[in-house]
Amino acid sequence: MKLLKEYIEKYGSVTDSSILKVDSFINHQIDPVLMIEIGEELKKRFEGKNINKILTIEASGIAIGIAAAYAFKVPMVFAKKKKPSTMGDSFNANVHSFTKKTDYNITVSKEFLSPEDNILVVDDFLAMGNAIIGLKNIIEQAGANLQGVGIVIEKGFQPGGTILKEQGIHLESLAVIESLENNEITLR
Amino acid sequence: MKLLKEYIEKYGSVTDSSILKVDSFINHQIDPVLMIEIGEELKKRFEGKNINKILTIEASGIAIGIAAAYAFKVPMVFAKKKKPSTMGDSFNANVHSFTKKTDYNITVSKEFLSPEDNILVVDDFLAMGNAIIGLKNIIEQAGANLQGVGIVIEKGFQPGGTILKEQGIHLESLAVIESLENNEITLR
Repeated sequence: MKLLKEYIEKYGSVTDSSILKVDSFINHQIDPVLMIEIGEELKKRFEGKNINKILTIEASGIAIGIAAAYAFKVPMVFAKKKKPSTMGDSFNANVHSFTKKTDYNITVSKEFLSPEDNILVVDDFLAMGNAIIGLKNIIEQAGANLQGVGIVIEKGFQPGGTILKEQGIHLESLAVIESLENNEITLR
Repeated sequence: MKLLKEYIEKYGSVTDSSILKVDSFINHQIDPVLMIEIGEELKKRFEGKNINKILTIEASGIAIGIAAAYAFKVPMVFAKKKKPSTMGDSFNANVHSFTKKTDYNITVSKEFLSPEDNILVVDDFLAMGNAIIGLKNIIEQAGANLQGVGIVIEKGFQPGGTILKEQGIHLESLAVIESLENNEITLR
């Protein structure tokens, strides 16, 4: 996706040859026009898949989720990292975060996923793929159908993309980072 | 806002005469078409205020923030509840949550707020007003200008609205709940 790649090259920065900072347009400050275009691009990539629901994780997935949901004109559900006291029965999965070196539990109310659902999972980043595997687990518990995974930025030098494809998942990453070596961003 | 009130009456529910559940369209599952209309309504309410930035808090403010930012065609910044290790200097404020009975710290990178900014703060709920006061504090630290506060649902039977207006803040709530007594939703 051309506009996204331009933003990454213009506004992205690298620290420690492994951390890509895109907090000026994706995950702290957000450019809404870019975000809506990301939603439209995801709609193109998953045309004909009969998507009726978008699923993501709080917090950084929400903006992408809304943009995708608006493009598809379907509801968006975001998994919570803490189960609210008001939530009834839920689907749950454990996710290991390599970045934060902790495990956390993600939860989605049983009210909002059913076997009739054709789901597109979206998220801002794909690195090890653990968050996506957690969402896939929840979709399976609900008996719903995972139609695909849409990612804004995939770190191509980490194994998440390969792991998801090996599981037969239709993965579309709008930008793939080939390398961050020498603190330089190289796009695939 | 008519559409929002219809959604609240149709899909909202009450538990314990104090908790309004709107998780089927606002804070767990989100209706993107309603959300985009909320953004457009906020733009109407704050026309002529020269807004150049939207500020909110993760996680439940993000969807409203994106919708407002898209309507105004300006960037949105969301305050984080945990400072990421990659964030440099930041503005910080303490917020007491009555719902969760804890204090938490909110943080915004100094990169994204400046004295030139005319800011609209948005959030999903207004009850005691503490989250908004925390954001106001951060805006003051940045020397930026708080032009107004846009809320999706104000609990009119709690003091947040009065507290904000007494501080001279231009507050617009798109729906105000008069009462949840007897587990019935009464809109103002």
